Amino acid sequence: MARITSVEIEDVRFPTSLTADGSDAMNKDADYSAAYVVLRTDGTDTLGDPLAGHGLTFTIGRGNDIVAETARQQAAALVGRDVDELAADMGGVYRALTSDSQLRWLGPEKGVVHLSVAAVLNATWDLVARRAGKPLWRLLADMTPAELVAVADLRYLSDALTADEAVALLEARAATKAERIAHLERTGYPVYTTSAGWLGYDDDKLRRLCQEAVDAGYGHIKLKVGADLADDVRRLTIAREVIGPERRLMVDANQVWDVPQAIEWMAALAPFDPLWIEEPTSPDDVLGHAAVRRAVAPVRVATGEHCHNRVMFKQFFQAGAIDFCQLDTGRLASVNEIVAVLLLAAKFGVPVCPHAGGVGLCEMVQHVSVLDYVAIAGDLTDRVTEYVDHLHEHFTDPCVVADTGSGSGYVLPRRPGYSTQIHAASVARFRFPDGEYWAERRARETARVTAQSSEESPAAAWR
Amino acid sequence: MARITSVEIEDVRFPTSLTADGSDAMNKDADYSAAYVVLRTDGTDTLGDPLAGHGLTFTIGRGNDIVAETARQQAAALVGRDVDELAADMGGVYRALTSDSQLRWLGPEKGVVHLSVAAVLNATWDLVARRAGKPLWRLLADMTPAELVAVADLRYLSDALTADEAVALLEARAATKAERIAHLERTGYPVYTTSAGWLGYDDDKLRRLCQEAVDAGYGHIKLKVGADLADDVRRLTIAREVIGPERRLMVDANQVWDVPQAIEWMAALAPFDPLWIEEPTSPDDVLGHAAVRRAVAPVRVATGEHCHNRVMFKQFFQAGAIDFCQLDTGRLASVNEIVAVLLLAAKFGVPVCPHAGGVGLCEMVQHVSVLDYVAIAGDLTDRVTEYVDHLHEHFTDPCVVADTGSGSGYVLPRRPGYSTQIHAASVARFRFPDGEYWAERRARETARVTAQSSEESPAAAWR
Repeated sequence: MARITSVEIEDVRFPTSLTADGSDAMNKDADYSAAYVVLRTDGTDTLGDPLAGHGLTFTIGRGNDIVAETARQQAAALVGRDVDELAADMGGVYRALTSDSQLRWLGPEKGVVHLSVAAVLNATWDLVARRAGKPLWRLLADMTPAELVAVADLRYLSDALTADEAVALLEARAATKAERIAHLERTGYPVYTTSAGWLGYDDDKLRRLCQEAVDAGYGHIKLKVGADLADDVRRLTIAREVIGPERRLMVDANQVWDVPQAIEWMAALAPFDPLWIEEPTSPDDVLGHAAVRRAVAPVRVATGEHCHNRVMFKQFFQAGAIDFCQLDTGRLASVNEIVAVLLLAAKFGVPVCPHAGGVGLCEMVQHVSVLDYVAIAGDLTDRVTEYVDHLHEHFTDPCVVADTGSGSGYVLPRRPGYSTQIHAASVARFRFPDGEYWAERRARETARVTAQSSEESPAAAWR
Repeated sequence: MARITSVEIEDVRFPTSLTADGSDAMNKDADYSAAYVVLRTDGTDTLGDPLAGHGLTFTIGRGNDIVAETARQQAAALVGRDVDELAADMGGVYRALTSDSQLRWLGPEKGVVHLSVAAVLNATWDLVARRAGKPLWRLLADMTPAELVAVADLRYLSDALTADEAVALLEARAATKAERIAHLERTGYPVYTTSAGWLGYDDDKLRRLCQEAVDAGYGHIKLKVGADLADDVRRLTIAREVIGPERRLMVDANQVWDVPQAIEWMAALAPFDPLWIEEPTSPDDVLGHAAVRRAVAPVRVATGEHCHNRVMFKQFFQAGAIDFCQLDTGRLASVNEIVAVLLLAAKFGVPVCPHAGGVGLCEMVQHVSVLDYVAIAGDLTDRVTEYVDHLHEHFTDPCVVADTGSGSGYVLPRRPGYSTQIHAASVARFRFPDGEYWAERRARETARVTAQSSEESPAAAWR
């Protein structure tokens, strides 16, 4: 028996805006942050160590406190619950967390209340996988089709996918799971890198990072675009010079365009032969993405990191609006909603290439992509999962990307859980606003402001 | 000159769940609540009284604190700003509040961060209208077409409506605004009532309230459905007995059905000749609503109270998914986004029948509907705006519905502002958790729990 004895919620922020890491046409000053949930228990894991679950959702700075507070309110009801009982009914745990009608009003199933549910459920899934002594992908891959469908949230999806269809889809893959696991153990799961292409990097840094990506065995490289067309043309010229015509180049506009503008801008970038244009417009605009897709072919269309729930993905698939599904493990409501989207994508034949980067997302998506190949889609065609080499040093079980001879890939996670435990020392240093880093920085800034002759009025704070 | 000197944010909750007011198939225990924003200034209004702006967004209880805290963070930047400068550039104020890229990540443009922007901007619009000495609808109706389009957020809409089209649409109505104002001064703006049909009311109360609605001159009555088909048939039978075959009957499922279930259930309710089925499924499901609409005709389809932004409404219109647009003044980002949706609806020929009820929504929607008729749609065909007779006593300038001989209607607001100032005594009594009402209730409940022999484990708190 292992009961949850307490919930700890931390607002952890890393000062990534200082180096323009993560800068794009929409987000110029992202401080990669985690609303981090730890579920403590009075039990032990399979190694006899104290059992705890760790989960997070990703934000980019301000407002991380709001998500953390919401998670605190939602997670409170888990205290006192038995871990083995939770493990036996994770569908019920999901429904309880998402069915509080008063909190649901604030979404529903979107925005802060959904991000916070993701953090709480991610921690719960980590807890359950650690209790079982398995990496999360294997816990899920070991489930029977009926068990996996029972944890998936199929509400509002039955016009596109019924539970019976989902079970049949999984059963068709069940006999060959072991072969696909063996394949991934040899090759890793295919990845691409975004580390080279942040908008805030200068041309020399872009050129150097593209070369490093080539040298590291990457066959796919992604660049941010959308702020200035002349800049985009110059940067894509540099990237193509370095990576050559064969490697794949993807571009990402981070929602800055209206639909007609996306079509026009991409006509100018088409000569660089991009594999996909990512987030060409509002993430809510299913019909807009469909219009862009029709217009920019053979360039393909990708989106999903801001797609807020399974109902939106259902429509992206029904409308033929996207070629790649980039679901996000901090935005969808954890495994329960992710499995539903993986099932939908498999039915509609759309490859899932999850969004990653940020903080902790790479650690999570490796489990999702492996599960997708092993148990759901059963296919690697056109699949590449994002990888960004930031902030992994803060995790106790960081993801590993290695060149296995057939290109770079995520090495299969072997340790129990969802790989999302942050080192206690990192939490202590980067906890906002009282961690050592932020306290020191505030002291420095206060000293600097005091040294200036301040003529600023309160209105100067207006952005 | 009038500068904003402070921002006050209050979490105000009314215990409506005690009487099942507001109960429906999704929301069984709503405590109607307001995240309430007051912008104090050092200036005066046109009567020489201290000038302040008051605004709110509506929630149904838990989580109202989260919205209030988010509004507090967003509104802080308004302190020190000059009201006349704000009034001259309300488009810029809107963009500043919605463009913080770090907070935007938590939506974007949806959920808590959008609800809170609505509250802050609603207060700002109230402030600006009071400064001008005009009710909000008149401040907006007095703008030139170019001025009104300049405050509207048309981002992501240009594939459906350009700024030039919007100006042309408004110019076509401009010469006849005075005639329409004169008409509404005689008749009021048409309303319907939801007060009769909450799901938690028993049959006798339903029958009595339907009769009272008929006696009060209502030509449209709405009932909640979707929890149990036999109950729905019995309740609609009672309602039709009382209101007769001529008056309009609407039904509202509050999102409880999947698409196939909505179609099946509405086939069973069609004999009661409902004018519309409201919220048949997930509010995010544009394509699902389109499928339901095709299947249930001639019953029409309405949605919008949970439609989170203008990009979603654009798609509801483009897909031919709805017959009635029920925008919500607490969920869209205030006037700036509402005007964009009114313009889209006018272009697509979809009547706007705003969602109201809750707390403060009726006070706001009267301004929106009057503006729509006077300056934008210019038409009353198929227009009825919701009215629920709860909680108006807490407002200093409550909406008034009267039977003018041609049916019940909202009497045109005459006092300056957006009608959303709550009496200070009501705030003091219902502020959560420290207002008098909640403090007394907590003391009573603590006394009761202490009196029971408590065998409850912490797990019993799990819902």
